[in-house]
Amino acid sequence: MVMDVMSAAARLEQAGRHVIHMEVGQPEAPAPAAALAAAREALGGSGAALGYTESLGIPSLRRRIARHYAETHGEEIDPATVLVTTGSSGGFVLAFLALLEPGDRVALSVPAYPPYRHILTALGCEPVLIRTGPETRYALTPEALLAAHRDAPLKAVLIASPANPTGTMMTAEALARLIATAEDAGIAVVSDEIYHGLDYAFPATTALAASRSTVVINSFSKYFCMTGWRVGWMVAPEQLVRPMERLHQNLAISVPTLSQVAAEAAFDGRAEMEAVKAGYARNRDILVKGLPACGIDRFLPVDGAFYLYADVSDFTPDSHAFARALLEEAGVAVTPGLDFDPVAGRHFVRFSYARSEADMVEAVARIGRWLKGMG
Amino acid sequence: MVMDVMSAAARLEQAGRHVIHMEVGQPEAPAPAAALAAAREALGGSGAALGYTESLGIPSLRRRIARHYAETHGEEIDPATVLVTTGSSGGFVLAFLALLEPGDRVALSVPAYPPYRHILTALGCEPVLIRTGPETRYALTPEALLAAHRDAPLKAVLIASPANPTGTMMTAEALARLIATAEDAGIAVVSDEIYHGLDYAFPATTALAASRSTVVINSFSKYFCMTGWRVGWMVAPEQLVRPMERLHQNLAISVPTLSQVAAEAAFDGRAEMEAVKAGYARNRDILVKGLPACGIDRFLPVDGAFYLYADVSDFTPDSHAFARALLEEAGVAVTPGLDFDPVAGRHFVRFSYARSEADMVEAVARIGRWLKGMG
Repeated sequence: MVMDVMSAAARLEQAGRHVIHMEVGQPEAPAPAAALAAAREALGGSGAALGYTESLGIPSLRRRIARHYAETHGEEIDPATVLVTTGSSGGFVLAFLALLEPGDRVALSVPAYPPYRHILTALGCEPVLIRTGPETRYALTPEALLAAHRDAPLKAVLIASPANPTGTMMTAEALARLIATAEDAGIAVVSDEIYHGLDYAFPATTALAASRSTVVINSFSKYFCMTGWRVGWMVAPEQLVRPMERLHQNLAISVPTLSQVAAEAAFDGRAEMEAVKAGYARNRDILVKGLPACGIDRFLPVDGAFYLYADVSDFTPDSHAFARALLEEAGVAVTPGLDFDPVAGRHFVRFSYARSEADMVEAVARIGRWLKGMG
Repeated sequence: MVMDVMSAAARLEQAGRHVIHMEVGQPEAPAPAAALAAAREALGGSGAALGYTESLGIPSLRRRIARHYAETHGEEIDPATVLVTTGSSGGFVLAFLALLEPGDRVALSVPAYPPYRHILTALGCEPVLIRTGPETRYALTPEALLAAHRDAPLKAVLIASPANPTGTMMTAEALARLIATAEDAGIAVVSDEIYHGLDYAFPATTALAASRSTVVINSFSKYFCMTGWRVGWMVAPEQLVRPMERLHQNLAISVPTLSQVAAEAAFDGRAEMEAVKAGYARNRDILVKGLPACGIDRFLPVDGAFYLYADVSDFTPDSHAFARALLEEAGVAVTPGLDFDPVAGRHFVRFSYARSEADMVEAVARIGRWLKGMG
């Protein structure tokens, strides 16, 4: 549905209307200057062959990613267990194919990023949706996981902190308890850490701090503002690296070379990215204060990523219709919750705050006027 | 095994040895200058956001690809049926997921590009390997296809012309007959046209000339020398476009933006690429004349791509050992046939002639001396 919202927004803009884009899940800022410079340099001269790389990724990039864990999380990671992937999307396909057989059940919390269940279904696996609530900060609990495992054995569980669309995070303790429970029960853990680096409430913890048996998926798309470069990475248990390498050789050959070169340099642009993050933090404050003043005062903890997930059932029984009206009548594009949650999603919309501060101020003003007009 | 050969070659080079690389399936030449210039321009300025594109690809690139069929094959293609993919690899995954369910049988000719069967197996499908021979220019015939279909129903057939590793091509008539037979029997046709443009014996024909119900897969990797850019395309029957778009949104989001920009410009570099192709044609002549003079006189028709597939069973019962010795003793890296054909492959090696003319001359000299020394 986010795609439908984007198309509708594009049609309005073609008709001359101004739209504030709070539906998009990507930063407005470009890649770090260091990344752009490295890409330009790789294109320089006439000998720029830019052929395939090793299937696991350029060795110096794999080492740089491993070093990132030492610098950021104090975790020593063997570069041999780092795999470069074509965005986190490439990582999910690889992880699922390496871990799962058709028919396998995989637990997910809902609401969740829709491709999780769609990739699983495309591969013949069964996504098992476990509803979460405010009492656990919308995180999956060990108890809920084991209950689903008792219904029928689970092969894996997918966790995400910070999460999309909720923007919620798991505390280090909650994450460690869940991972220990899963692994004790023989359930493989896949941790989506694509929004790492974008944490406001408390620091995000990598699943690798709890266990080296988890498969960690990450990307340069969000924190490093490199969505269209399609470059991400995984950290996998040692025994999965060779099977994943073979799969990757067959499914993708290698990851775009220029994107890998730019990604390695991106780590030199952390100061620049911290400034971008500070902008998100200001945007977050504008929404956290401004939306309640408009009457939207029920939303999930705004812990991380760049999403605020709000309950709009005070205004509508159908958040899809609400989103359509908000776009057409007030020029603010948001994503209806049904994209992320086929049941309770009709009560929710997702606001993305990855755009400019001026956009956030104007969005709150437009939403306030529009809701006042409805009342 | 090609990966093992490449590793062994790299080890020899690190030890100071000179190796001629006839094992690699990629051009030595860079992307067209126009493609490199377009990428540089897209990186220019500070506003280079390079975000996600439409999942089906940048519209102007899809139109340009459609126009390419009019220019090159005289076929009118609706740009709405063109999908941009992450290399041809991305196209295969998408085509197989859109067409197949786990358990489905898919016919392939052997010898064949190994990822065909490995991707199918990873997706839970069954590759049905059909042996080909000299009497059909190593092309799959309607009769062989129907025989396999009688054993147990086939869901699809994968064809490739020019083919890897054989370098053979199907005539327009053979291709049309095979496609008509498959479609009459309800077998979907996937045509791998990644080596199109690299034809020497006679012009390659697109499957689209025979039927608009085929799924055509192509790439900028080979003719346009853009392997590491990971950008390709598909032309799909209209009714498959929307399901493939949904799959692509979930599995990949979009194709690397910079690669799409460069790919569109690559079509302006055809004169440059024709010069590269003329180099392959000279290389081909050097091998076609030079190898028989060395004693390697049994090889498949050297029709297209940049491969020569030679029977070396006069010299060895084990072409893998032959390739290892040729590399270690003569410094020429080739790919053993077992990669492409688990049975007869032990008699064959693949020579790639994508490198320089000087390399070809030196390779023939080294092979000649080495085989003389063996005899």
